[in-house]
Formats: sequence, structure tokens, C-alpha cells
Amino acid sequence: MAKVTPIEGYEERVRASFVRQNAMKTIGASLTKVGPGLIEIELPFSDALTQQHGFLHAGVVSMALDSACGYAALTLMPANTGVLSIEFKVNLLAAAKGERFLFRATVTKSGRTIIVTDGQAFASQPDAEPRLIATMTATMMAVAGRPGVQD
Amino acid sequence: MAKVTPIEGYEERVRASFVRQNAMKTIGASLTKVGPGLIEIELPFSDALTQQHGFLHAGVVSMALDSACGYAALTLMPANTGVLSIEFKVNLLAAAKGERFLFRATVTKSGRTIIVTDGQAFASQPDAEPRLIATMTATMMAVAGRPGVQD
Amino acid sequence: MAKVTPIEGYEERVRASFVRQNAMKTIGASLTKVGPGLIEIELPFSDALTQQHGFLHAGVVSMALDSACGYAALTLMPANTGVLSIEFKVNLLAAAKGERFLFRATVTKSGRTIIVTDGQAFASQPDAEPRLIATMTATMMAVAGRPGVQD
Amino acid sequence: MAKVTPIEGYEERVRASFVRQNAMKTIGASLTKVGPGLIEIELPFSDALTQQHGFLHAGVVSMALDSACGYAALTLMPANTGVLSIEFKVNLLAAAKGERFLFRATVTKSGRTIIVTDGQAFASQPDAEPRLIATMTATMMAVAGRPGVQD
Repeated sequence: MAKVTPIEGYEERVRASFVRQNAMKTIGASLTKVGPGLIEIELPFSDALTQQHGFLHAGVVSMALDSACGYAALTLMPANTGVLSIEFKVNLLAAAKGERFLFRATVTKSGRTIIVTDGQAFASQPDAEPRLIATMTATMMAVAGRPGVQD
Repeated sequence: MAKVTPIEGYEERVRASFVRQNAMKTIGASLTKVGPGLIEIELPFSDALTQQHGFLHAGVVSMALDSACGYAALTLMPANTGVLSIEFKVNLLAAAKGERFLFRATVTKSGRTIIVTDGQAFASQPDAEPRLIATMTATMMAVAGRPGVQD
Repeated sequence: MAKVTPIEGYEERVRASFVRQNAMKTIGASLTKVGPGLIEIELPFSDALTQQHGFLHAGVVSMALDSACGYAALTLMPANTGVLSIEFKVNLLAAAKGERFLFRATVTKSGRTIIVTDGQAFASQPDAEPRLIATMTATMMAVAGRPGVQD
Repeated sequence: MAKVTPIEGYEERVRASFVRQNAMKTIGASLTKVGPGLIEIELPFSDALTQQHGFLHAGVVSMALDSACGYAALTLMPANTGVLSIEFKVNLLAAAKGERFLFRATVTKSGRTIIVTDGQAFASQPDAEPRLIATMTATMMAVAGRPGVQD
């Protein structure tokens, strides 16, 4: 994780942007942690989000990880600057089997134009340790004059 | 696109698996083309799937591309063999602005264990050419004895 | 491949930059084709570049593909603008077994800041069709005031 | 990093394979650390490995990272099992400017067939802290009956 200098008001900006992401509402995701260069998103299991074996669809995992990565980058941006996902790569390490899911993203390198972020997805079952089910590396671009995450 | 030998009954198997993906139903995606080594999925725009600027969330784009890639690989599998997404990478080329979206996936290399697929996402607006908005490369693993796409 | 507008003098700029890449000289790579948004690099097999089974090292494949992708992007840049590799992903489809190797890159999307390129690597054996052995997607950033490929 | 169970003789197997990689000899790389699920490779700067601005070519960085990732996976394999690079993705965080370079790889997930590894590249200058210049995620496949790294 890169060393970071928090910028005043970042948490409010991130939270205000997150609530405008209808896609996060649709899947039932909550923004549970906002720190400088750090985001956590949580998601309860839902039958509406499964692949054909009844586990969480890999696309939903990547959707929540992408939002987490974008907002982790956004915490380090000045007030009038947004971020844009250029590309991301996800490795699916285990079936997304669980009652709850945690998506954690941190900033690995915060450059002037390009911000590289890394995310991890964990599945929780009752009476078991959370299990790492996916990792993401996402590359973001800072976009001056367009606040928010431009997914 | 790799040379491919269609296997009897592949379309029925792919369609039967697709309808069991609740996540595809939730986002409103339809399977519109199933050929040997080729899949097309279509999706109308929906307010429920947006990021905070009102465009389709990049995660939804990657979700539909991942399903398209998985099913493209599945068209080439024997009846008792499924495929599992190991990893995918998506490049977001333009904002996902449009009334309808088309996701097309083909098989680039079909190995005994590993199948590499490539996908493209297009956005359509009325009175305009469809626009390429994203590309994906997805790596799938053949899993004998577990039919379907194991996202 | 994106539609492109060639910019006067691009071939000279690309060739002048390529000859300054000592790494390309060290592996014995030649720039064999330079078109608008298109590059081909060729490489004869060498014992100095192998992994432990005597085939070309995957890292050498990715090195030549990365240069091809960078120069494909550079063909579309104005005279005073260079490109910088932000990230790339390579899929290794088959063992890099052959007497000669061809690396071809094209520009998929040429944006103002970000250029997305795709590359393919082929291995040739005598009396056989060239075989696709690897694909790459590489994301480049345009850097005004710093001509050349900034690998 | 995944929990790992070291398998007797892994260090000898890794070292014996590494010395057979001519490509590592050609670039001047040394294997400096071999632990269970952990590899370090070091490389001094050389004029023969540069891009046109005199820094280490990004392809050389990815070559050393790929070998580090492959051998990290190999440390966890039984004696008669090798690993094969399926794909890797590298993010280039800063120019590869330095006198020495360190490439460190660890195993993130060691499955029965698929092993996911992560690598970091650091550049060292005299009188300065090593600087993170690149990260890699590499996906490896275990191949029974073919010991070594099948790059």
C-alpha cells in the first residue's frame, strides 16, 4: 500500500458518489469503511445474484471489487477530480460460496495521472474464517473537473 | 478465433445453463446467439445498473462479458464437462453510454485443460453505429464431471 | 483495429526509437513492418533466450510483444509525443517452439491519453503453418514532450 | 500469501531448473532466495537490457518477474510435477531506473491444478530506499510428469 496524504472531505465525497451508484444498490452492497487509500464494501448473499450452481456470479464479485478499487483511488484525489477505470484484472481463487462477502481495496501507487489499486474479496460462512476468493488489480485515471468514480 | 468442432447438443446445454444464472436475469441479459465457439448476449439499458453518472456500471459490462466468454468456451466442451472462470481482464475503452449493449465472445485457443476466450462489448444509440466500449480476455478451465459454467 | 490517421514522419520516428532499444538488439529482434497503428517485429530462435526445456522464454515473448504494442501506439502520436507502457497482460497459448517468431501489434483504441493495443505472437517451423503462441493486451499512455516509447 | 507445506528437496529442484534457463543467464539474473512459496531474483543494471531512454526495458522486468512467479509456484509442487505459465499481467508503476533490481514472488493461492502468484519488482539506487517499480499477477498450471518451470 502506497503512503498517502488524506485530503479534507474525501470521505463525504466518496460516500456521496457511492449512493448515486444504482448498480451498488441493486446488488445490495454497502460502503462499510472509507480511509485514506482504503475502501471496504460488504454484500450479503442474494439468490438474485447467482450463477447456475447457486454461488455468487464472478461478475458480481468483479463489480464490487471494481467499485472498491475506484473509491480507494478517489479518497486520494482533490475535490474537483474524479477517477475513471481504465482496466482491471481479476483472479477467481475459489467459488464465491458464503453468507456475506467483503471487498477490500487499497492504493498501490498513486501517480499524477495513473492510480494503481489492488483489491481482495472474502467470503464468510458462519463458524468459519473468511476465505479469500478473488483478487483484483485495477488501473484508474485521474480526471480533473469530473468528480466521482466514472465507472 | 480458433478452429472448432461443434459437439452435438451444445446449444441446448448452453441455453439450459444460462437460464439458471439468476444474475443474468437480474440485469436483464438475453442469450441471443449460440454458435460453436461463439456467444452473443444482449442487454437493454436500465437505471438499476448505473454508476453515479447514469451510465452502465463497468462491473455490469464485465459481468455480461464474463458470461459470454464462459459460454463460448462451453460450446466446445463435451456433454459432461463444464468450464470455470480462472481469471479475466477487461479494458474499458469508452463510457458505457447507450440504449442497448451487445457482448460477443469467441474462443481464441481451446486446449485440453485451458480455454482462452476474447470478448467485445458494444453500445448502441439510436441513429448511430454500435461503438466498441470494452474488450475482455478470459481464461477458462475445463472441469470434467461438472457441466455448465462455474462462475 | 481502430480507424487511424497517419501522422507524417511516423515511420522514421518509430525506426529511430527502435534502434535505440538495446534490449531488442540483445535478443536479436528486427522491426519488419511499420504501418499506421500496426507493427511487426521478428526474432530468430536463439539458445541464449530459452527456458530450461529449450523453448523461447515466455518473458522474451512478452518483451517483443510489449515493444510491438508500444510502437503500434507510437505510430499514431504527434512528433513531440511519446508513449509509456502502463500495464500489459499476456496469455501463453502454446509452447514457444520454433525457428522464427513474429510479433504483430495493432491499436484497438486510440484515446487522447490512453491507447489500448493488442498483440499476437506466432511461432514458425519449417514446412508448417505459423502457430499462434501468445496474445497480449497492453495499455499505453501518451506523454507529450517526451517522444519515443518509454518502456 | 497462502499457507504452504514445504516439500522435501524443493530448493534443489528449483535451483537445478533455474540454471538451465539460458534467458536468465543472458540477462544476468541470479536466484538469491528460495523459500516455500517464495522466490527472490536479483539483477544488476546492464546497458544491454535498456529501452531507448537508457532504463531497464519493461519486458526484462516482466521476464524476471515471470521466472520468480513460476519458481515460487514450483517450490510447492511434488518432485515429479512442473508448472506452466498460463498468463500474467504486469503493472509498470515507475521507470525501471536503478543500479540493481530485486524481483520477489509469493504464492497467493495454491490449488490442485491452478496456482496464483504475485510478484513485485524493486529498483535500488545508491543512498536511497528500494522503490517499487512493478507488480505482477501470474497464473500457473501444475503439470504432472513434467518437472520444472515450463515457460
